[in-house]
Amino acid sequence: MSSAFGKNIRISIFGQSHSPAIGTVIDGLPSGKRIDLERLGKFMARRAPGQNEYSTPRREADVPEILSGIKNGFLCGAPLAAVIRNTDTDPSAYADTTDRPRPGHADFTARMKHREVHDFSGGGHFSGRLTAPLCIAGGIIIQLLGQEGIDVGAHISEIAGVLDEPFDPVLVSARDLERVRNGPFPVMDSGTGDLMKAAIMTAGQAGDSVGGVVECAVLGLPAGVGEPMFEGLENMIAAVLFAVPAIKGVEFGSGFAGSRSTGSRNNDPFICGGGKITTRTNNHGGILGGISSGMPIVFRAAIKPTPSISMEQDTVSFSKMENVRLSTKGRHDPCIVPRAVPCVEAAAAIAVYDSLLSSKIHL
Amino acid sequence: MSSAFGKNIRISIFGQSHSPAIGTVIDGLPSGKRIDLERLGKFMARRAPGQNEYSTPRREADVPEILSGIKNGFLCGAPLAAVIRNTDTDPSAYADTTDRPRPGHADFTARMKHREVHDFSGGGHFSGRLTAPLCIAGGIIIQLLGQEGIDVGAHISEIAGVLDEPFDPVLVSARDLERVRNGPFPVMDSGTGDLMKAAIMTAGQAGDSVGGVVECAVLGLPAGVGEPMFEGLENMIAAVLFAVPAIKGVEFGSGFAGSRSTGSRNNDPFICGGGKITTRTNNHGGILGGISSGMPIVFRAAIKPTPSISMEQDTVSFSKMENVRLSTKGRHDPCIVPRAVPCVEAAAAIAVYDSLLSSKIHL
Amino acid sequence: MSSAFGKNIRISIFGQSHSPAIGTVIDGLPSGKRIDLERLGKFMARRAPGQNEYSTPRREADVPEILSGIKNGFLCGAPLAAVIRNTDTDPSAYADTTDRPRPGHADFTARMKHREVHDFSGGGHFSGRLTAPLCIAGGIIIQLLGQEGIDVGAHISEIAGVLDEPFDPVLVSARDLERVRNGPFPVMDSGTGDLMKAAIMTAGQAGDSVGGVVECAVLGLPAGVGEPMFEGLENMIAAVLFAVPAIKGVEFGSGFAGSRSTGSRNNDPFICGGGKITTRTNNHGGILGGISSGMPIVFRAAIKPTPSISMEQDTVSFSKMENVRLSTKGRHDPCIVPRAVPCVEAAAAIAVYDSLLSSKIHL
Amino acid sequence: MSSAFGKNIRISIFGQSHSPAIGTVIDGLPSGKRIDLERLGKFMARRAPGQNEYSTPRREADVPEILSGIKNGFLCGAPLAAVIRNTDTDPSAYADTTDRPRPGHADFTARMKHREVHDFSGGGHFSGRLTAPLCIAGGIIIQLLGQEGIDVGAHISEIAGVLDEPFDPVLVSARDLERVRNGPFPVMDSGTGDLMKAAIMTAGQAGDSVGGVVECAVLGLPAGVGEPMFEGLENMIAAVLFAVPAIKGVEFGSGFAGSRSTGSRNNDPFICGGGKITTRTNNHGGILGGISSGMPIVFRAAIKPTPSISMEQDTVSFSKMENVRLSTKGRHDPCIVPRAVPCVEAAAAIAVYDSLLSSKIHL
Repeated sequence: MSSAFGKNIRISIFGQSHSPAIGTVIDGLPSGKRIDLERLGKFMARRAPGQNEYSTPRREADVPEILSGIKNGFLCGAPLAAVIRNTDTDPSAYADTTDRPRPGHADFTARMKHREVHDFSGGGHFSGRLTAPLCIAGGIIIQLLGQEGIDVGAHISEIAGVLDEPFDPVLVSARDLERVRNGPFPVMDSGTGDLMKAAIMTAGQAGDSVGGVVECAVLGLPAGVGEPMFEGLENMIAAVLFAVPAIKGVEFGSGFAGSRSTGSRNNDPFICGGGKITTRTNNHGGILGGISSGMPIVFRAAIKPTPSISMEQDTVSFSKMENVRLSTKGRHDPCIVPRAVPCVEAAAAIAVYDSLLSSKIHL
Repeated sequence: MSSAFGKNIRISIFGQSHSPAIGTVIDGLPSGKRIDLERLGKFMARRAPGQNEYSTPRREADVPEILSGIKNGFLCGAPLAAVIRNTDTDPSAYADTTDRPRPGHADFTARMKHREVHDFSGGGHFSGRLTAPLCIAGGIIIQLLGQEGIDVGAHISEIAGVLDEPFDPVLVSARDLERVRNGPFPVMDSGTGDLMKAAIMTAGQAGDSVGGVVECAVLGLPAGVGEPMFEGLENMIAAVLFAVPAIKGVEFGSGFAGSRSTGSRNNDPFICGGGKITTRTNNHGGILGGISSGMPIVFRAAIKPTPSISMEQDTVSFSKMENVRLSTKGRHDPCIVPRAVPCVEAAAAIAVYDSLLSSKIHL
Repeated sequence: MSSAFGKNIRISIFGQSHSPAIGTVIDGLPSGKRIDLERLGKFMARRAPGQNEYSTPRREADVPEILSGIKNGFLCGAPLAAVIRNTDTDPSAYADTTDRPRPGHADFTARMKHREVHDFSGGGHFSGRLTAPLCIAGGIIIQLLGQEGIDVGAHISEIAGVLDEPFDPVLVSARDLERVRNGPFPVMDSGTGDLMKAAIMTAGQAGDSVGGVVECAVLGLPAGVGEPMFEGLENMIAAVLFAVPAIKGVEFGSGFAGSRSTGSRNNDPFICGGGKITTRTNNHGGILGGISSGMPIVFRAAIKPTPSISMEQDTVSFSKMENVRLSTKGRHDPCIVPRAVPCVEAAAAIAVYDSLLSSKIHL
Repeated sequence: MSSAFGKNIRISIFGQSHSPAIGTVIDGLPSGKRIDLERLGKFMARRAPGQNEYSTPRREADVPEILSGIKNGFLCGAPLAAVIRNTDTDPSAYADTTDRPRPGHADFTARMKHREVHDFSGGGHFSGRLTAPLCIAGGIIIQLLGQEGIDVGAHISEIAGVLDEPFDPVLVSARDLERVRNGPFPVMDSGTGDLMKAAIMTAGQAGDSVGGVVECAVLGLPAGVGEPMFEGLENMIAAVLFAVPAIKGVEFGSGFAGSRSTGSRNNDPFICGGGKITTRTNNHGGILGGISSGMPIVFRAAIKPTPSISMEQDTVSFSKMENVRLSTKGRHDPCIVPRAVPCVEAAAAIAVYDSLLSSKIHL
């Protein structure tokens, strides 16, 4: 078992880059909730390839077909299944990688695990394309969270060292998230966005790639959600987040920077006002002891530079067991950070929603 | 469900800071393996309180009593249960926190979750003391990993901004891990260790606290371990790691720094030699696509400054719903990073071992 | 979560009687095993409707389309997804049941659970049609078991009180299972088969239905498979078996009859011969303490008479909250026992295979 | 993993017949509920050994010590751990079974699984003694169910072929359950109880044993509880029930007898009255499609004759690999059915409660 997550909801993801279809089954969704498929399509479009000059030219409609679970626009209680047919595939571009693993990719490790039967084409099940069904699940769950007053949104915090204006961990608002979501490039400050785009173009023209950081906020989550120890919100979010292929790190609240601070500065004083207890600062990222404090959940995910680059690299030939050179063909993004933004939102939503359901059990 | 982890092995942790006992049940351990209880005791001693001038004066023997699962020194196939009696408890020191949540602690969020019935005393189930049963489980599993040629070790990478010499991600050896493990202070470079100790003492004398980073390596794990998407090694390690209360971030391999690099520099070229394929560098931290590459697993965990400080802080009174001042009493470490080192090892071992068992299913 | 089962493999089933498609995702199958799709088709055909005069005239090709997980005839390590399009649907026949729950069906309980949004048409997710994806999963797993020398087969033990010759619990052989599997009617003794068919025809002509018992054997399972307490073979088999809608009871070995026996008669003496330990009799049905003994696994499942009958019955109108009469239309089997035979085999195979994988973890 | 069950609550059971202690950890219990430990003690006493002339003379106080999770009489949100020390053990009586497996016991299969390291003494983890921690968990959960108006009770339906008056599946009342629970022998009709006791005594004097059937009812469960397919109430109850060592069969409602009936007789007509929909009969045992109908849940469990008998039996010697004779020593019940009654209640309660919590998630 592997490509499945969740306790109260259970998300199973299937497909390979070039199999007939990719898709997801979501078991345990609440019956009676309305799902807006048009809105889901818009969410999916944010990660779809081929949108502009700085993303891969592979074009897939990426419109999920709902096979079950929705009737007359409502979740009917049966598991929801959705598939996307793979149409614009070009396996010939990947012929090399069967014998020559691409550095930074799962080609090598998947072969160590599954030997010759691994579907190398396009990375098979390890392709970034599998984040599409993750976004189907996440996009649906974001709607369910929205119906409970919970908002999830992310922006590019950093690309190639260019920093966007961070979310204010105390004041970040639904309006902020909405603005980033609807803009042409998901940043708080469009000026820095232009610098990021320039860095991406420059790397792409050099046959190279760049990485970055995505910052995500969850607003409106009531205090008291999350379970102790292994099912804290941090555990849950991290457990889903690392399903997004290029993510190599995560930090909550003040994170690594906070570890260089002192207790007196990093602790967030409690204050009360208007019959409500909040914290003056939010270095804890909205989570204490794994449980939500009612403050915004804020975390950042580190995304490595796209491993597929057209520059020639050193690798090996499995068949000849000798060192060879490889120039990755295929169609790739010189930076996947912009398309990763909705994936991070999807991962956060899935984790938070499963936790929220756990917290409802004993009401 | 919450304080339980694992698919092939299942670790359940129980207890509160001041309940009669704390402990763990480990279900699914392989029968027939020898467990060295003396060695387990030594492992436990590395996280035990009261060892020296820079840790809490609370003294607990912390010697686990085995209730079941071991017969004549061997795992007998029945679930292993172990308990530690709580003896040196001083609940009176925590009287304040019932009404006044300590900033940076779970006092507030636990109350939001469990209302008045939460066992506030010493933080209850949210106490760092619960890492003792985590270390029982981890210490036993480290022995099982050792029997398969897999070594787990960590060091203090950073305290209060003072950096230890990092593990060499390609060359880090069992000898390195052994040396750190047996030393009086778990660092690679004892000189920087002295600087760290000075920083801890200084913070403690000011009634304040400091945080840091622990770096952990897993050696000898064969290539091909880990499952796709939600059960990759990164997902699994993170899912256990955040059970350690003060951890707020994790990064694998080049992590956040790698996200500022380029594909051509961050990709690790494959090379072959001696009939084996390795990578020249190890920015991937031994994990690609969630699966082990055969290179050392290397990750770092950010640990926040101890939230319990004796300096006066702002908080609220639940009963009066007004802002008040709080000076945390009780016995606390001005820096828990040194004692967190074996906890990080325990978390890594548990996650890696469960993954290793998954990979054995289909052999 | 609900329509998903398994620890080492994870089977997720989706679809409604009249949704665009039904299907399954199987996560965790071993890579490298060959799957014979033609043989799978033959297995599916054994439960397919419309085969003869005593089963429902609904005709569905019921040929699964593989969307992922198989490449060049081999399991490639990615989750296997398979769908069957629903084509020959006639929802008009079920218009009545939206307001008038069919006695003996899930119409009423599903409405209590999901209110008006439940997809009543054809029983929705509760339709016996959902045993088709169960048989996809089971049919594939039976092939995997076969590759390890384990055979699974069932026969009609009883219909309408007519008893077939039982499996000899000690001597039942692969040849017996093969003969039943390939015959036109799955019984040991074709003479009693004719009596059963006559009973079914008679009930059908009266607008009524009959039930029966299916007996299943698993051969070749080595001793030592199964986990204590909640994951014993009996627990696992029962947990899957009751997913088949009409099953209301299960007994292992001598079962209910054994409870009327004495210890001295019901105990199976151990004997050794040829370097092997077996039991002289097999009242334990091949399972002691939840663990396989190496003797044939033998169990029986009680199947209730098809609840859908054309005779008029008493029921209620939801909208008018009054007692009404209902004559079930639609196309139904007067006895589903023959078609349940492969479903019972599928359930047994899934449970046994998951247990077998658990037992491999610690080898 | 094995000796753990549950999704929303997670019950882990540990211990061996002669280990220092046996016990349970229950994770996920709702905080804030009151637990009456005296009432728990009374429940435990119903399965305790040594109560009268027809049960084993082994005497254990069997009073659980609560190690965590209860504070001031209330569940505090932390996992509940409880242990029972093993005191009156006499391992010498079991010396034989290390080499000579007792027919009908798990001695042989456990050895096949765990080889020489299995703790044979008293059956180790496979001892019926492990139903004591099951009853701790079940006894606590019965109290939680009671607080929601749900009652669980069982009686001896049959011993040695002597039948008690069955529960009326429509009219069975809390008063019936109460009467059986408080009586000296758990039957509806004390006259048949005397016949059963005579049969037990007779078998015991002959060095033999007898089995029987326990019938259990769950009252007050609202309609709509249970999940489709693999998490239906029947699946869940069966999955827990077979953890009780001697149980070899289970049937819900009309069960095996129903399979010999016709649809027109076995279907339960819906009727409405007083604004409520019920069924006129209850052949479905309160469960349709895995979901509760609001009618009493009624099921029966077949319990094999105690395998430990003092009559000499055939078995083998592991060390000599030859056929030998065995006369089981140790202290055993000639019939464990009376003591199994609370175990069946515990199993039912655990399964129903976990299902009930699942159904609350989406309210």
